[in-house]
Amino acid sequence: MSARRLRPQPLTREAFAPYGDVIVADAGSEHFTINYGQTERYHNLATVDVAESDGAPIISLFRSTPLAQPVSLRIMERHPLGSQAFYPLSPRPYLVVVAPPGDFDADKVEVFLAQPGQGVNYRKGVWHHYCLALEDVSDFLVVDRKGPGNNCDEVELPDAPWTIDL
Amino acid sequence: MSARRLRPQPLTREAFAPYGDVIVADAGSEHFTINYGQTERYHNLATVDVAESDGAPIISLFRSTPLAQPVSLRIMERHPLGSQAFYPLSPRPYLVVVAPPGDFDADKVEVFLAQPGQGVNYRKGVWHHYCLALEDVSDFLVVDRKGPGNNCDEVELPDAPWTIDL
Repeated sequence: MSARRLRPQPLTREAFAPYGDVIVADAGSEHFTINYGQTERYHNLATVDVAESDGAPIISLFRSTPLAQPVSLRIMERHPLGSQAFYPLSPRPYLVVVAPPGDFDADKVEVFLAQPGQGVNYRKGVWHHYCLALEDVSDFLVVDRKGPGNNCDEVELPDAPWTIDL
Repeated sequence: MSARRLRPQPLTREAFAPYGDVIVADAGSEHFTINYGQTERYHNLATVDVAESDGAPIISLFRSTPLAQPVSLRIMERHPLGSQAFYPLSPRPYLVVVAPPGDFDADKVEVFLAQPGQGVNYRKGVWHHYCLALEDVSDFLVVDRKGPGNNCDEVELPDAPWTIDL
């Protein structure tokens, strides 16, 4: 089998549902007014699931440099003990590459193009590529797990590298 | 006593330490390189403390409209069961008004001017004013608690409104 070429699809709640949450303030989110009318709260947009094996939630910032174009992929990873949320802080799109949890299935890898203002929360155990900034160095706010135990598995893509057609 | 006028101070980790964490990617944060060299991780910048009384962490987005100038304050609040983190998503400064936990002491209210890229995490029980956007409608990513129990107390400022001199 020759190296694969993947094409991103738009990131929507529906398409991403098998992998986790899309974090976005839109009409499709539960929202209500607080702070004596000054604030609209788009509520509980992601399930932070990090308590397994004495885990606890932490907030970190990631500063990611884009890969050279064309973007080529070799490795995917998963966090068996906790969810991991990314929210973009830079006004640039980024790539989200995922595959279902369980035994890694190379035929089920999907690529999404996330727009500024759209975050993602990978459910526990979902295979994903590491943070794929586009255009320029970009910051992300990350909510994931600290705690004991091995929380990162990696798998090598067959016939790597795979290429993303943007 | 006549109504008070407050002046903001710059938001720094040191000055804010009695109230919680400043969430910022700078040399003063623990940081290290991950993702095969592509990402710098500014690690564990806030203590998310929401487990009390069967609480769980959630991620929300707040869209806040600034108060009219001059900014005047009447009420402060605290969350006795959990921390609450705010990270600004809009490139604008905002105000942070706090007082120490325990019985509310009007003489101990402090005001900070947070810059874009600086988030705050209020420790459990720290008195604070609700989200005070400046200049224009601004979004914030919020990490706080869901769960049973009353998690919001309010107190009225004596001789309200108090005014902030910007």
